[in-house]
Amino acid sequence: MNPFTEKALILLQSRGVTLDDIVDCVYYLQKPYHVNLQHKDLEESVLRVLDKREVWHALITAIELDVSAEKSTYANKDLEKIVQMDEGLYGMDEVLAYGICNLYGSIAMTNFGFIDKTKYGIVGRLNEDGKKEGVCHTFLDDMVGAIAAAAASRFAHK
Amino acid sequence: MNPFTEKALILLQSRGVTLDDIVDCVYYLQKPYHVNLQHKDLEESVLRVLDKREVWHALITAIELDVSAEKSTYANKDLEKIVQMDEGLYGMDEVLAYGICNLYGSIAMTNFGFIDKTKYGIVGRLNEDGKKEGVCHTFLDDMVGAIAAAAASRFAHK
Amino acid sequence: MNPFTEKALILLQSRGVTLDDIVDCVYYLQKPYHVNLQHKDLEESVLRVLDKREVWHALITAIELDVSAEKSTYANKDLEKIVQMDEGLYGMDEVLAYGICNLYGSIAMTNFGFIDKTKYGIVGRLNEDGKKEGVCHTFLDDMVGAIAAAAASRFAHK
Amino acid sequence: MNPFTEKALILLQSRGVTLDDIVDCVYYLQKPYHVNLQHKDLEESVLRVLDKREVWHALITAIELDVSAEKSTYANKDLEKIVQMDEGLYGMDEVLAYGICNLYGSIAMTNFGFIDKTKYGIVGRLNEDGKKEGVCHTFLDDMVGAIAAAAASRFAHK
Repeated sequence: MNPFTEKALILLQSRGVTLDDIVDCVYYLQKPYHVNLQHKDLEESVLRVLDKREVWHALITAIELDVSAEKSTYANKDLEKIVQMDEGLYGMDEVLAYGICNLYGSIAMTNFGFIDKTKYGIVGRLNEDGKKEGVCHTFLDDMVGAIAAAAASRFAHK
Repeated sequence: MNPFTEKALILLQSRGVTLDDIVDCVYYLQKPYHVNLQHKDLEESVLRVLDKREVWHALITAIELDVSAEKSTYANKDLEKIVQMDEGLYGMDEVLAYGICNLYGSIAMTNFGFIDKTKYGIVGRLNEDGKKEGVCHTFLDDMVGAIAAAAASRFAHK
Repeated sequence: MNPFTEKALILLQSRGVTLDDIVDCVYYLQKPYHVNLQHKDLEESVLRVLDKREVWHALITAIELDVSAEKSTYANKDLEKIVQMDEGLYGMDEVLAYGICNLYGSIAMTNFGFIDKTKYGIVGRLNEDGKKEGVCHTFLDDMVGAIAAAAASRFAHK
Repeated sequence: MNPFTEKALILLQSRGVTLDDIVDCVYYLQKPYHVNLQHKDLEESVLRVLDKREVWHALITAIELDVSAEKSTYANKDLEKIVQMDEGLYGMDEVLAYGICNLYGSIAMTNFGFIDKTKYGIVGRLNEDGKKEGVCHTFLDDMVGAIAAAAASRFAHK
């Protein structure tokens, strides 16, 4: 397994996200376009998205910003509050997500917008859990949505 | 009225899209976030999006590509067929749409992805009509979705 | 050779652009970062960029818009004039170019901005030739810059 | 003065960047296209860019990531090292910068790529200073380049 992929899976796991959770989102996005689609067909696409250096960099940056909000270690306390509250007009969580989606073309972008709004599966669970005291998933839910959207686009193009 | 806006409304009308059709899409996108939202509150945002030179340029380019497909005047007949059939992996319709959404930030992008998938209102009607013999809306449905998504983002930020 | 790559090389050749012309632009972009860089090291990266379906679609759409301007077959004569004159604020040529650059990440985008401004090599020659009567390269120079920028980014990441 | 603008100017000043520094970059970008261009003509455009909520959010996020690197308070020490060393393939500094440039269209993007490569004025000084022990400008130089590029695009469109 590619070194970025392995590290990404471990890091995601440490934040409560499994490979299966992401594959399930890809399935949700691709199911309307394929008969007899199997979860295992999609796993490869998720793993290949996680291979990429820019995906890894977006992921560690995103999780750093979430974890710092949980630990209240931001130097800028206004920003800390914005991230802790997952303020709707903040926008930088989506900007980092586009850093992933863009790599997989226009289909990845529309898929991301869709799952970000419908909050399917793990995307919604992360969003809900992020409202609990001491938990911040402001960036993580967008990362997971972006990785799933990218993998769905990759699968569609194959 | 700004000259771009006036020309854009006339051009959209000539392709079967009214200001109300677009406002209705913005309403669909913004309703979940506002109590007592009125259609007339959103009209201003659509008009302001249509003010922009880059929106006008995206719109005329998009409609040119649709109309040339209807008239079968493409120099490249492979491309003509792709546009006439609204091939799912073509992607340039979304690329032009992002040229509009990007101007209104990350919220515009997610809104576009959502309405592009749900095909609400005029977006869906254009898509359906585009399947008829001699009609091509490959680019137009994305333009309308992008304008509505941009207006929704603009409204959310005010 | 991948079918998209082969078709792309033939199409580019028909518009006066060779593989060597593009490799030379990649060399210009990557030379400052590598000792003993050879043109042949970069050729593979250009060929792999041309493999991608979205690159092919951007390229044929761009060239269609140039050729239609040369033949004066636009339905919208205002747009035809804008494209024929390569109007600086038009912007859709860059929007299509970003459809390519985005696929190769943030380094591709800065490389594109740089070569688009410095107009190195074939990018500048296309731009100059495009001012001649009956010749339109409004989109093509951006496509070539984008392909070179994408290939430079791909090479940098390897 | 708009509240975002005022806070942005104070924050930039605290990191060693003045309004004049940014205006000077805009001048560098726009001078080739205008006769008798004056620095004061461009100041308004910079101030208007700084009005925007998304620009403010990008700026505080970027500076937070720089400051945390200076203080070595990252939870993820691999990421801390990448940001401290301003690693060339990191890419998230440019991704945040595109969050600003995108709002001002395709011309802003090419301007950003150009100044990011030529490292004119304050962009280059920040980059150089960032190599000193205890100083990190990995994100800030891209923010300043993006604000200048956005202001140049805004000015060009007026």
